[in-house]
Amino acid sequence: MKAAVLHTFDESLTSDEFVRYENVPDPKISRPTDVIVRIGGAGVCRTDLHIVEGIWRSKVDVKLPYIMGHENAGWIEAVGPAVEGFRVGEPVICHPLVTSGHCLACRRGDDMHATDSSFPGINANGGYAEYLLTGTRALIKLPKTLAPKDVAPYTDAGLTAYRAAKKASRHLLPGQFAVVLGAGGLGHIGIQVLAALCAAEIIVVDRSEQSLELAKTCGAHHLVKADGHEVEAVLAKTNGRGAEAVIDFVGEGDAVARGLAMTGNGGFYYVVGYGGKIDIPTIDMITTEKTIVGNLVGTYAELVELMALADRGLVNLHTREYSLRDANDALHDLHAGRIHGRAVLIP
Amino acid sequence: MKAAVLHTFDESLTSDEFVRYENVPDPKISRPTDVIVRIGGAGVCRTDLHIVEGIWRSKVDVKLPYIMGHENAGWIEAVGPAVEGFRVGEPVICHPLVTSGHCLACRRGDDMHATDSSFPGINANGGYAEYLLTGTRALIKLPKTLAPKDVAPYTDAGLTAYRAAKKASRHLLPGQFAVVLGAGGLGHIGIQVLAALCAAEIIVVDRSEQSLELAKTCGAHHLVKADGHEVEAVLAKTNGRGAEAVIDFVGEGDAVARGLAMTGNGGFYYVVGYGGKIDIPTIDMITTEKTIVGNLVGTYAELVELMALADRGLVNLHTREYSLRDANDALHDLHAGRIHGRAVLIP
Amino acid sequence: MKAAVLHTFDESLTSDEFVRYENVPDPKISRPTDVIVRIGGAGVCRTDLHIVEGIWRSKVDVKLPYIMGHENAGWIEAVGPAVEGFRVGEPVICHPLVTSGHCLACRRGDDMHATDSSFPGINANGGYAEYLLTGTRALIKLPKTLAPKDVAPYTDAGLTAYRAAKKASRHLLPGQFAVVLGAGGLGHIGIQVLAALCAAEIIVVDRSEQSLELAKTCGAHHLVKADGHEVEAVLAKTNGRGAEAVIDFVGEGDAVARGLAMTGNGGFYYVVGYGGKIDIPTIDMITTEKTIVGNLVGTYAELVELMALADRGLVNLHTREYSLRDANDALHDLHAGRIHGRAVLIP
Amino acid sequence: MKAAVLHTFDESLTSDEFVRYENVPDPKISRPTDVIVRIGGAGVCRTDLHIVEGIWRSKVDVKLPYIMGHENAGWIEAVGPAVEGFRVGEPVICHPLVTSGHCLACRRGDDMHATDSSFPGINANGGYAEYLLTGTRALIKLPKTLAPKDVAPYTDAGLTAYRAAKKASRHLLPGQFAVVLGAGGLGHIGIQVLAALCAAEIIVVDRSEQSLELAKTCGAHHLVKADGHEVEAVLAKTNGRGAEAVIDFVGEGDAVARGLAMTGNGGFYYVVGYGGKIDIPTIDMITTEKTIVGNLVGTYAELVELMALADRGLVNLHTREYSLRDANDALHDLHAGRIHGRAVLIP
Repeated sequence: MKAAVLHTFDESLTSDEFVRYENVPDPKISRPTDVIVRIGGAGVCRTDLHIVEGIWRSKVDVKLPYIMGHENAGWIEAVGPAVEGFRVGEPVICHPLVTSGHCLACRRGDDMHATDSSFPGINANGGYAEYLLTGTRALIKLPKTLAPKDVAPYTDAGLTAYRAAKKASRHLLPGQFAVVLGAGGLGHIGIQVLAALCAAEIIVVDRSEQSLELAKTCGAHHLVKADGHEVEAVLAKTNGRGAEAVIDFVGEGDAVARGLAMTGNGGFYYVVGYGGKIDIPTIDMITTEKTIVGNLVGTYAELVELMALADRGLVNLHTREYSLRDANDALHDLHAGRIHGRAVLIP
Repeated sequence: MKAAVLHTFDESLTSDEFVRYENVPDPKISRPTDVIVRIGGAGVCRTDLHIVEGIWRSKVDVKLPYIMGHENAGWIEAVGPAVEGFRVGEPVICHPLVTSGHCLACRRGDDMHATDSSFPGINANGGYAEYLLTGTRALIKLPKTLAPKDVAPYTDAGLTAYRAAKKASRHLLPGQFAVVLGAGGLGHIGIQVLAALCAAEIIVVDRSEQSLELAKTCGAHHLVKADGHEVEAVLAKTNGRGAEAVIDFVGEGDAVARGLAMTGNGGFYYVVGYGGKIDIPTIDMITTEKTIVGNLVGTYAELVELMALADRGLVNLHTREYSLRDANDALHDLHAGRIHGRAVLIP
Repeated sequence: MKAAVLHTFDESLTSDEFVRYENVPDPKISRPTDVIVRIGGAGVCRTDLHIVEGIWRSKVDVKLPYIMGHENAGWIEAVGPAVEGFRVGEPVICHPLVTSGHCLACRRGDDMHATDSSFPGINANGGYAEYLLTGTRALIKLPKTLAPKDVAPYTDAGLTAYRAAKKASRHLLPGQFAVVLGAGGLGHIGIQVLAALCAAEIIVVDRSEQSLELAKTCGAHHLVKADGHEVEAVLAKTNGRGAEAVIDFVGEGDAVARGLAMTGNGGFYYVVGYGGKIDIPTIDMITTEKTIVGNLVGTYAELVELMALADRGLVNLHTREYSLRDANDALHDLHAGRIHGRAVLIP
Repeated sequence: MKAAVLHTFDESLTSDEFVRYENVPDPKISRPTDVIVRIGGAGVCRTDLHIVEGIWRSKVDVKLPYIMGHENAGWIEAVGPAVEGFRVGEPVICHPLVTSGHCLACRRGDDMHATDSSFPGINANGGYAEYLLTGTRALIKLPKTLAPKDVAPYTDAGLTAYRAAKKASRHLLPGQFAVVLGAGGLGHIGIQVLAALCAAEIIVVDRSEQSLELAKTCGAHHLVKADGHEVEAVLAKTNGRGAEAVIDFVGEGDAVARGLAMTGNGGFYYVVGYGGKIDIPTIDMITTEKTIVGNLVGTYAELVELMALADRGLVNLHTREYSLRDANDALHDLHAGRIHGRAVLIP
């Protein structure tokens, strides 16, 4: 099959060719619960840039060359002997994690913390290709209203944004405020999820006017340009007390310190983006009684919930399509801040 | 009245005399809900050393000279005209915060975040004295089983430990692990609260053999000497996965990084002690999906809960009594690590 | 002042005159926290009909003659000496319960269960009058967008609907279903609150076409005529499994058994309306693991939350105004099912 | 193999022989995830008497003759081709429900509400036999401290008591009260779980002095003889306000009405036992804001948690052993109230 393959890391992201479009062997069914999906679309994620940079080398065990792409949807191509309930040709979206479902984390509905799992596109070959090897427990059937290429980014960008926004929505009350830092691929979904799941007022902070415009159509109530005075702007809009929830889709540079500063006493700061550092004196955590919450993708059940929102039109993905052979263009456009919404590769 | 008064900050804590025992004017009732309490005992807290160091100058507005002491219990001496339900002479313990009860935080049972409050011993004169000015909403009547001097430290050391341990107990399940870092004035109460409120296995980490001995009598199931290898020791006891909850009563030096390292994926790190820094890459928060929780004393209702535990003998304070005139001895003994449990000043 | 006074119970509700419009003495400030409010509007509630019927005689201690009216809003007329922060003439809405704020329930933010309280219009004189005696802790200032007569019914009809819908919204996930039984004075608000606080699909069941039309404008996704086949209709719309939440604003006749039958396994049935009985074998509670939840008005903080929704236009009250002297017309119209939304008496 | 087989229902429970000890065909592996367990012990449950009475005929689809016994533990005898991680001869305890793990309920950790499952001993052949057919997802390995025959009743009696007590422990605070109605096979475990998971004071109500004695050794703080005045006795012990949680392990006769009457305002009544009816006016649910909670066994993860408590000696089962051939004796002894704790059949 054709695939866009990562052969070397590039710490400075200066190469013209991050991945190489070439022929590789087709994936094969080996375990009874294996499934092969013909890719309809594969989302391009900032994490893919971080993988190219080599940031993930110390976190997961992956050997080059390999195929990135952890946001996948398509059609069932082949199934192992123990797979029930799926027919060849059916459209599906793939939860990013492949689990056995036997560990205690899975039993508790917390499959993101499965003790034994694979994560295609991160620690196994992913969906920048014509075919993907995944497992039966990762599959969700698509309703007729949704086409694979239009929904692929829900599996990570969407799901991660959903989980963080859902956590926040559990404690956000009418009259309270949620700040969304960064209205990009994840952020623009997070805004829609917040608007669907709670009645807090949503303040969106971004450096780009275009992203703020997108945020408005997504349901933001207040727009704040990230110009160095965003903390003051947020405090002004929240009666001086800061927001009850800040969801940080940036996670690097000044965003972290500013995000924490915008978080009100007793409030929650959700870390979603990454690349930077949290650096805060313990006394400040105590006097303000803030909570800092890490967020790792989302569960299978949460992806089902997100697809229900998408099916009803409560969440919409803004995508930009690229041919798989143009994967490098998509990656470069993302790196250059030229994508508002999410890029999707189509084989 | 007699009081131990703070006249100057001492950043290096090298002075012989942190406070001066001297005559000061008696407090007076001015507002209808004011109450004056004759002090039976006032706890000596590490925060008092931090106040002497001047650490709190940037956090709260306090002018020297003033009287420290935020852990107070005693007997009603006088009440304002709007005070109902308390008689002169009744034994009471004082919640550290004096609130009006009208703001939204108080209405929601979250009085620690009252928009308008005073904190005697922090931003107003406290209980290192014969008499204390407080308010009717801060008072809890003591059951006959409990004497003021024996319970005074519950109001901050006890309450702070209680609130953090209670938060942890809400998610700790049988088969899971809680780590307590530091078995001192707060820690030794936190251990007892955990043992009373949940069935997690309790691992206590401390540098002092004597504190570990105290921890054992408080209900610790595993003792770990803090010798530089405590992270490995905790991982070994938790099947390599780390603890579901780490309560850090130290909050400075290596404790913070080690405490975070002992926290398992999806687990909670509770910050209670302070003086140091949290310093963690955002990517680590994401891949582990940890939560970092700040803790600020506790609510009035939580102090009632803690007194119910104390009344039933489920929590016991280890105290060491000093005469109020010997306040400097108590502060120096605390600074030198010579107090196992909690010092109490008695006028 | 003028008031509409209840002099006798009427178990069959057949009298022409339930209340008598007459002169009564003005209320007077006696306690330091007392407040007198000049009534701008007083909502007419089905509970008032139940009071006339005498149903409440065994529940609360009330002696005739007295003045009904527990949904009140207006302007500050006079304040006791301990009242701070309110000026004569300011527009306010009155939480129905007057509390001291000192008991443990209030401290926990659960003021509906205060051990010591009064409930004007239920166990003390209410707002079917020119003036109302209440307390400072019951008052919420109105934003300029909201006039007293337009918001009075929020204090009970609105607040009760809000609290029940909020409880349901805490567990309702995208892809799940909420049934609202009865789209009347409470129900039409409950629908709007559900739509604002969660993304569940809302199914409304009512006997009246006119109420179903109102439900649609309030945000209902599915309308079901209560014609004896409503259980089957709800099961059909929920893939045969029933709804995760059923909020019963009827609470009498067949509604209760049908509401329970529409509740799916593991689901929640919220009782709000009353007059009937719950009658279910314990084995059915066990095999289905349903939960039945009683609902009593709502807290002060919840009324603040509801006013935030109203201020932003997310919840709108459908009211019909009557002059206070026509209180009997309003009560009869309510009894006859001629009011879609809520009647409000204006002095 | 040998088994004790149910051939006919006996609505009045007057027959000498409820089940017949006889030869039946051995169970066989047919699906890839099937497992056959050699029974070490099978608990005898009041539900078995209810099955003999025919009460369950309308709830589940079961054809006579069949083998009861839903509380099973033993050793792996044979496994299907897709079973991983279990070796023949290993000691295991069997979660009562056999699921595929694919439905949304299982994904959310709520496997008791699996859309597709079997319940050996209820709707399939159970463990009153030498061998049991179950599935790989139902198995938990036993620690060496625990023998199959000593733990079998944990799988239903224990697990059901655990789940209900755990739910209650989530909201029970120090200073609050939990009532346990019935200190029999389930109740005596429920008491121990409450004592392990929270610090509420435990009041146990039972008709039998012997059961109250057992309750005391299990950790009850107050004992109340069920003599017709138990409601008054509980109100007296709870300062007149009733208990915050009542767990009803009886669920029939007067227990239900009395259990509800003992539940304080805002409190929770947990239904575990069955046979009777809940019969309460909706107005009483509203004025008291009580919650009635149905309870259905427990999840796989909860059985793991319970085994952790048992392994640490925090919960102990009181069992009485019978030979499988004497199954009728065990059932009759249970019916006659002669068993304090739980009967176990040993092949």
